[in-house]
Amino acid sequence: MPTPPTAPPRTCVATVSLSGSLTERLTAAARAGFDGVEIFENDLLASPLDAAGIRARCADLGLTIDLYQPLRDIEAVPAGLLAANLRRARHKFALMNRLGADTVLVCSSVSPHAVDDDDLAAEQLARLADLAQDFGIRVAYEALAWGRHVSTWDHAWRVVEKAGHPALGTCLDSFHILSRGSDPRGIEDIPGEKIFFLQLADAPPLAMDVLQWSRHHRRFPGQGGFDLAGLLRHVLRAGYTGPLSLEVFNDVFRQTEAGPTAVDAHRSLLVLQEAVGLRELPPPVVPTGIAFAELVTADADPVTGVLAALGFTRAARHRGKPVDLWQQGEARILVNTAGAARRDGTALAAIGLESPDPAGATRRAEALLAPVLPRRRAPADAPLEAVAAPDGTELFFCATGHPGLPDWRADFEEGERAAEEPLLTHVDHLALVQPWYQVDEAALFHRGVLGLDARESVDVADPYGLVRSRAVTDPQGRVRIALSVGPAAGDDTAHAQHIAFATADVVAAARRFRSAGGRLLAVPANYYDDLAARYELPDAELETYRDLGILYDRDEHGAFRHCYTRTVGRVFFELTQRDPGYRGYGAPNAPIRLAAQHDDRTR
Amino acid sequence: MPTPPTAPPRTCVATVSLSGSLTERLTAAARAGFDGVEIFENDLLASPLDAAGIRARCADLGLTIDLYQPLRDIEAVPAGLLAANLRRARHKFALMNRLGADTVLVCSSVSPHAVDDDDLAAEQLARLADLAQDFGIRVAYEALAWGRHVSTWDHAWRVVEKAGHPALGTCLDSFHILSRGSDPRGIEDIPGEKIFFLQLADAPPLAMDVLQWSRHHRRFPGQGGFDLAGLLRHVLRAGYTGPLSLEVFNDVFRQTEAGPTAVDAHRSLLVLQEAVGLRELPPPVVPTGIAFAELVTADADPVTGVLAALGFTRAARHRGKPVDLWQQGEARILVNTAGAARRDGTALAAIGLESPDPAGATRRAEALLAPVLPRRRAPADAPLEAVAAPDGTELFFCATGHPGLPDWRADFEEGERAAEEPLLTHVDHLALVQPWYQVDEAALFHRGVLGLDARESVDVADPYGLVRSRAVTDPQGRVRIALSVGPAAGDDTAHAQHIAFATADVVAAARRFRSAGGRLLAVPANYYDDLAARYELPDAELETYRDLGILYDRDEHGAFRHCYTRTVGRVFFELTQRDPGYRGYGAPNAPIRLAAQHDDRTR
Repeated sequence: MPTPPTAPPRTCVATVSLSGSLTERLTAAARAGFDGVEIFENDLLASPLDAAGIRARCADLGLTIDLYQPLRDIEAVPAGLLAANLRRARHKFALMNRLGADTVLVCSSVSPHAVDDDDLAAEQLARLADLAQDFGIRVAYEALAWGRHVSTWDHAWRVVEKAGHPALGTCLDSFHILSRGSDPRGIEDIPGEKIFFLQLADAPPLAMDVLQWSRHHRRFPGQGGFDLAGLLRHVLRAGYTGPLSLEVFNDVFRQTEAGPTAVDAHRSLLVLQEAVGLRELPPPVVPTGIAFAELVTADADPVTGVLAALGFTRAARHRGKPVDLWQQGEARILVNTAGAARRDGTALAAIGLESPDPAGATRRAEALLAPVLPRRRAPADAPLEAVAAPDGTELFFCATGHPGLPDWRADFEEGERAAEEPLLTHVDHLALVQPWYQVDEAALFHRGVLGLDARESVDVADPYGLVRSRAVTDPQGRVRIALSVGPAAGDDTAHAQHIAFATADVVAAARRFRSAGGRLLAVPANYYDDLAARYELPDAELETYRDLGILYDRDEHGAFRHCYTRTVGRVFFELTQRDPGYRGYGAPNAPIRLAAQHDDRTR
Repeated sequence: MPTPPTAPPRTCVATVSLSGSLTERLTAAARAGFDGVEIFENDLLASPLDAAGIRARCADLGLTIDLYQPLRDIEAVPAGLLAANLRRARHKFALMNRLGADTVLVCSSVSPHAVDDDDLAAEQLARLADLAQDFGIRVAYEALAWGRHVSTWDHAWRVVEKAGHPALGTCLDSFHILSRGSDPRGIEDIPGEKIFFLQLADAPPLAMDVLQWSRHHRRFPGQGGFDLAGLLRHVLRAGYTGPLSLEVFNDVFRQTEAGPTAVDAHRSLLVLQEAVGLRELPPPVVPTGIAFAELVTADADPVTGVLAALGFTRAARHRGKPVDLWQQGEARILVNTAGAARRDGTALAAIGLESPDPAGATRRAEALLAPVLPRRRAPADAPLEAVAAPDGTELFFCATGHPGLPDWRADFEEGERAAEEPLLTHVDHLALVQPWYQVDEAALFHRGVLGLDARESVDVADPYGLVRSRAVTDPQGRVRIALSVGPAAGDDTAHAQHIAFATADVVAAARRFRSAGGRLLAVPANYYDDLAARYELPDAELETYRDLGILYDRDEHGAFRHCYTRTVGRVFFELTQRDPGYRGYGAPNAPIRLAAQHDDRTR
C-alpha cells in the first residue's frame, strides 16, 4: 500500500533486532513509535501466542505486520525438491493469512542442492508467486551476500525481472548490498513498484567473513560506516514508497533490554530520514560551551575539599536547594547534596551546555525521542530546558549571560569572591563512561540530537580489560565529550567519570593544588624513564613532571601536558595544558593513568 | 643459554598475556609453573616497581626474564631518524641491564618513515646490534604480519642474515607466520643459534583484518585452529633450544583473573610439548562411560520428586553421609544434601566418569595442572580419585563393577528395588554451562586431560542473548558432554545445567512421567505447525509430540526426539531418543527450548 510521497515513509523494525519474548519485542517497537514490524519466523515459533493471537496483539499496539521472514532455499532446485518446497511454502502462506501479513521474504538459496541456472530460479520463483497469489501474498526475493549462486542485488533483480510475475518483486537489504561493495546506483533503474521491501542495517568497517559480520556486527543506521543515506536516495529515486525497515542483529542488542534498543533504533531511522529530506525535524542547535558540570553527593566535604585545593571558590548558593556553585574562571561545578546518593557515591549527574537556542535544542531532542525532563527547579527558578542522555546524565541547555534569555544563575545568590587570578580557565573536556552496550547509541545521540561531531574510536588497554573511547566535539572544540566503555566485568576504576580543566600552566596549577594539601595521582618513575627515551625534554622539565606526576603527549600540532587528582567516589579531575592545535586527549597515557588508579585504590 | 636437548625446553609467558598489576601477573606465572617471562614494556611503565625491584621480585618467584619487548620502528629509516632511534634504544638497553634481561624484541617497522630497502634495514639493525653488544644484549628481529615492508618470517630472516651480526638473530612468532598462511618449512634451514626466541599463539579461524585478529582474538596453543605442533617441529629441527613462550592477548584474558589464565596457559604448553615429543606425560585414559552425576541440594524433595516420576528408584544410601543413589537402568544420580547449597539451589556438583585406570587418569590430570581433590570420603569409603574441572565441577574417576578395582558403590547400602523395567537406560549426555570466558579453556581441559574429542562449536540464539556450545565426546559416544556459554549479562535460564537420559521410547517415557504427576516443559503450538511444514510426519505422530512437548530433529543419519522436565533450582532433565547414527544434540530446537524456559520462569 504505497504511502503518498508527501508523508514520510512508514517505519518498521524486525523482531530479530530486539531481545526478549515476542510480546516484549512488539511492545517495545510500538512504544518507540514504529509503525510496523517484520516477524522473524523463529520468534513466532518460540512464542506461546498463536498467529491469530500475535495478529490481535499487534493490532492492539497499533502495529502492522509488514513482512514475514524468511523462506529459505526455495528456488533453483531439481524438480523433486520443488514439490517439497512448495508444500512448505503453502503451510507458511496459510500461517501468514492467519497472521495478517501480506509480504514474505525469500532469501536467495544457500543450499548445496541449488543449481546455477537463472531460468530455473525464475521459473520456480514464478511457481511460488502463483501459489502466493492464491493466498493474497507477495513474494520479495532478496540476494544474501553469501547466497550460493545469487549474491548481489542486481542478480536477484534480473531473476525477478525474468520471472515477470506480478506477485514477485525484490527486497533490498543495505547490508547485503554495501558489505559486498556493490555499486547501488543501478537500483534507480528498477521500477519502484517492483521493490517490495527495503531493509536497512549499518555495520562497522570490519574486514571479516561476511556471514559472521552480518550475524554479529550489524548496527543501526548512522552507527557504522555504510553510506545508508546514499543508498536510500537511490531506492527513493527508483520510486519506492514502502516502509523503511531495520533488520539489525548483533550480539549486543540480543542481550540488552528491548525498550531502549527500540528507541535507539527509531531515532536512527528519524535521523536517516532527515538526512535524505524525507522528514523535517527541528534543526540541531550545536552547543557552544560547557556552562557547568553538576555533581551529586551525600557528603560534599571530600569533593569540595579537592575543588578548593584546585583554586575554586564557592561563588554562589542556590536560593532554594542545597546546591553550591564552585567557580574558577569559566569553569563551574555545581555540588548538589539534595539527591539521595549513596555515601561516597559522588557522581556526575548533569551537564549544562551553552546553547544559542535552548528551546530549539530541546525541541530537536524531543523529536529525536530523548526524554524531556520535568522541571526540577522550584517555580521561582529560571526555566531551564533539560533532557536525558542515554546513560541517564541530565543535559541542560543554558544561555549563561545571554540578554533576553533566562539565566540559570538567576536562582543563585552570590557567595565568595575569588581571591586570586584563576589558573584553571574553563572545562577542557568531560569524560563520560557509558554502559558497555551503549557507546554506539551514545555517539549517535550526541551527533544526531546535539549536532556534535563523532571522532573515530580508540582502544585503550586497562590492566583489567580494554577500554573503548570515542570523542564527540563541536567544530570549534569548545565542547568536548569523551565517551568510553570499560570492560563488561570490570571494576569501578575503569568506570569513574572525570572532568578535565584547562590551564595555560599545568605546572603552576599542579603546584598550587599540592601546596593547598591536594594529592595528585602518583605516576610510576618508569614512565619518566620512557619519556626521556622518547623525547628530548630538558632535564629540569622532566624532573618537574616526575615530581608532580604530569603526563606528556605530543602530536604533529603540539604537546599536551596533564595530571590527575585522586578519585572521589566515582569522579576525578584532570588538569590539562593543551598546545593550540593538539587534537587528542592524551590517550597513549591512559593505560598508565588507569594502572596508577588501580594501584591507588588497592593500597 | 641453550638447554640440553634431553630436558624439555623452558616455558615462558609474556606479561601481556595475563591481567592485573605487573606483580599480580608475575605471581600468577610463577604459581602456574612457568620458568620465565617476557616483560612487555607498557606493563613495566605502569608498575610502581622500578627495574631493580622487578628483577628482585622475579628472582624471589624463581622466574627469569627471557625477553624485553618491544622496540618498534627502529630500522630502515633516513639517517637523521636513526640517531634518535639509537638514543631511545640506549635508554632501553640500560634499563634491561638493571632488569637483568639479555634479549630484546625488535618488531619490523610499521612507520610511514620506513624505507623499502633491505640493505639499509640490515645496516641499521647491525648498528643497533653493535650498541646492544656493548650492554651484553641480543637483538631478536621479528616480522609483524602487518609490517610496512617486512611482514614475513623469511623476509625478516633474510635481513638478519644480510646484517651478519653475532648479536642479531630472529624471533619467530607463530601468529605472524600462520595468520598469513606462510609456509613454515623453510624455517628448518635457519641455523638454530640464529633463532633467538620463539613466541607461540594460536587463533580461531577468522577471516578478518590481521591486526584486529592478532590484538583481540589470539588463543593459547590448542584453543584455535593453527597447526602449532607442525610449526614447532620445524623450529626444533632448525636446532632451536631456547624457551617456548606464549604471547597471547585477547579481550577475554584481559578481563579474567591472572591465576587461572596462567594455569590454562601452562597446560596448553605442556600438551603442545607432549604432542611434539618434547615432554613425556602420563598417557590419557579415555573415559568409557558416565558412572553417575551428583546433585547437591539443601532440599532434596523437589528434585527427587522429579526423579521418582521419571521412574528412578532410591537404589542405595551412603553409609556415612546424607547421599542417596537414585537409579534407573545404568543411569545413576546421587542426591547429596550435605553441602551447604542455598535453598532451591539444586545444582550439578560432580560427575563420575567410568575409567579403565582411575589412578592413571588422575596422574595425567595432575601432570596437566588439574587440582587433585582431597578425598572427601570417610576412611571407610572406597578410595576414589577426583580432580576439579576448570568450572569447579568435581570429576571422579570410577571403575563401577570392575573386579580388582575399588567400587564407589561399596560405600552404599542397598535400598529399594526397581518395580518395573527401566524406560531410561543410561545418561545420553551432560550439558554443562561454563563461565562465559572459559569455554576454550574447558574444551582444552576435556581434550588434553581426559582425552575426549572436541567438536566444532555452534551458536544458538537465546531470546536474551547468544549461547555458544561445543561438545566433547569419546570416540564411541559413550561419554558426551556439551559445554556451553551463555550471554555475559544473561539471566539464570541460560545458565542451568542439564542431564539428558537415553530411552528407546521417548513417547512412553514422557507419558509415564506425566502420569506420575511430572510436568514437562510446554512447547509452543507454532513449533508443531512448522514441523508439519518441514517434515512429512504422520498426523498421529505429530499430535503425540504436540501433546507431550516432544521436539524433533533429523540429520542425514537419523532422527532425534527429545523433551524436557521443568527446571529445579539450576538443573533440569532431558529425555532423548536417538536413532543410531544421529550425531547431534537437537541444537536447532535449543532456541525453542530456551524461550519456553524463559516463559515458564516468568509465569
